[in-house]
Amino acid sequence: MKKSLGAKTITYPTPVFVVGTYDSKGKPNAMTAAWGGICCSVPPCIAISLREATYTYHSIMDSKAFTISIPSEDQVKEADYFGIASGKDVDKFQATGLTPVKSKVVNAPYVGEFPFILECELQQSVKIGLHTQFIGEIKDIKVDESLISDDESLIKKIKPLIYSPDNQSYYGVGELVGKAFSAGRQFK
Amino acid sequence: MKKSLGAKTITYPTPVFVVGTYDSKGKPNAMTAAWGGICCSVPPCIAISLREATYTYHSIMDSKAFTISIPSEDQVKEADYFGIASGKDVDKFQATGLTPVKSKVVNAPYVGEFPFILECELQQSVKIGLHTQFIGEIKDIKVDESLISDDESLIKKIKPLIYSPDNQSYYGVGELVGKAFSAGRQFK
Repeated sequence: MKKSLGAKTITYPTPVFVVGTYDSKGKPNAMTAAWGGICCSVPPCIAISLREATYTYHSIMDSKAFTISIPSEDQVKEADYFGIASGKDVDKFQATGLTPVKSKVVNAPYVGEFPFILECELQQSVKIGLHTQFIGEIKDIKVDESLISDDESLIKKIKPLIYSPDNQSYYGVGELVGKAFSAGRQFK
Repeated sequence: MKKSLGAKTITYPTPVFVVGTYDSKGKPNAMTAAWGGICCSVPPCIAISLREATYTYHSIMDSKAFTISIPSEDQVKEADYFGIASGKDVDKFQATGLTPVKSKVVNAPYVGEFPFILECELQQSVKIGLHTQFIGEIKDIKVDESLISDDESLIKKIKPLIYSPDNQSYYGVGELVGKAFSAGRQFK
C-alpha cells in the first residue's frame, strides 16, 4: 500500500553543490544548492536551479560562468553556512576562513579546501517557475591529488554529502551495493 | 594540490531514477537514468536527461508524462537491468517480474514494488546536446505506507541507491552528518 505525500520536491539523493561566482564588482561568493545534477554527456553539462532572489543568480547572469565545489563530510558546517547567508550582506569566504581560488579555466572562483571541483561555462538558462535553471558546460574537473588512490574509489575518499529534502538533513555515502551494467545481467 | 581530470560527467551524488512510461501502443516500460534532479520548487519540478536513441525519449515526447520510481538497495539488480535492456526489444517488467502500476494522476506507469514514486507531467523539454532534458511537474509523490515511522527518517527506511559515475558503481546512504539550516549557524 502506498500513501500520497502530495506534490512536493522530495527525491533521494539530492546533491550538496556549493556554487562559486564573482559578482559584478569581482567579489567572490559561494552558495549552496540542492536542486541540480548532470544533464548531458556530450558536451558534458551540469544543471543548477536558483531563485532570482539569490545573489548568485545575478552573478551568473552577468559573468556567464560558475564553479561547483563538492564539500566533504567534515566540511558540513561550512557547506551549510554557504546556504544560510547571502553574498549580498556578507563575505562568506571571510566568515568561514575558506579560500576563494580563481579558476584558470572559467571566470569564477572555487572553494580551495573542498576536494572536488567542476568548472562551468553557462550554456543556457531555462526559466521554469520560481527557479531558473542554469546549464553549465563542464570545462574541467579538479580533485585533490592526495585523494587519488588505487585501492579505494574516489567517492569513498571524497566523502560527499547527500541532502535529504524532507527532513532537511545531510548524510554520508554508505557501502558499495553493486556494479552498474553488471548487477542486472541475470535478467537478460 | 589539485589534479585535473578533464571535462567529464562526474559529480557526487548522482541519483538512480527509474523512469516509467507508456509507449505509443500503451506498453509499459521503465529505464534507469542517472542524469537528473529536482529543478524547481514552485511548481515542484524534476528534470531527467535522455538520449534521443532511447525508447523512453519517444514515449515521453508522445505521452507528455513519466514517473520516477526510486529503487531500494535490495532492488539494485532490477534497477541496473532497467538501464541495460531496451523497451524496444523486451518487456522489462516481464523479465524482472516487477509490476507496472498505472498512475491515477498522470499517463504513465510506475514500478509497484519500488518504495518511492514521483508522478510527473511534462512541462517542457530542453535540447542540450546528445541529451535532451525533460522537465516534469511533480503532480504527486507516493511512498510505501509501511516505511513511514516516527523514529527514523524516510531516507534511511527507503535506502535509495547512489550512483558514482567514474567507477560505475552503486552505493547506499550512510550516517546522518548534520542538520541543514542549522549546522552552519556558528559562522553567522
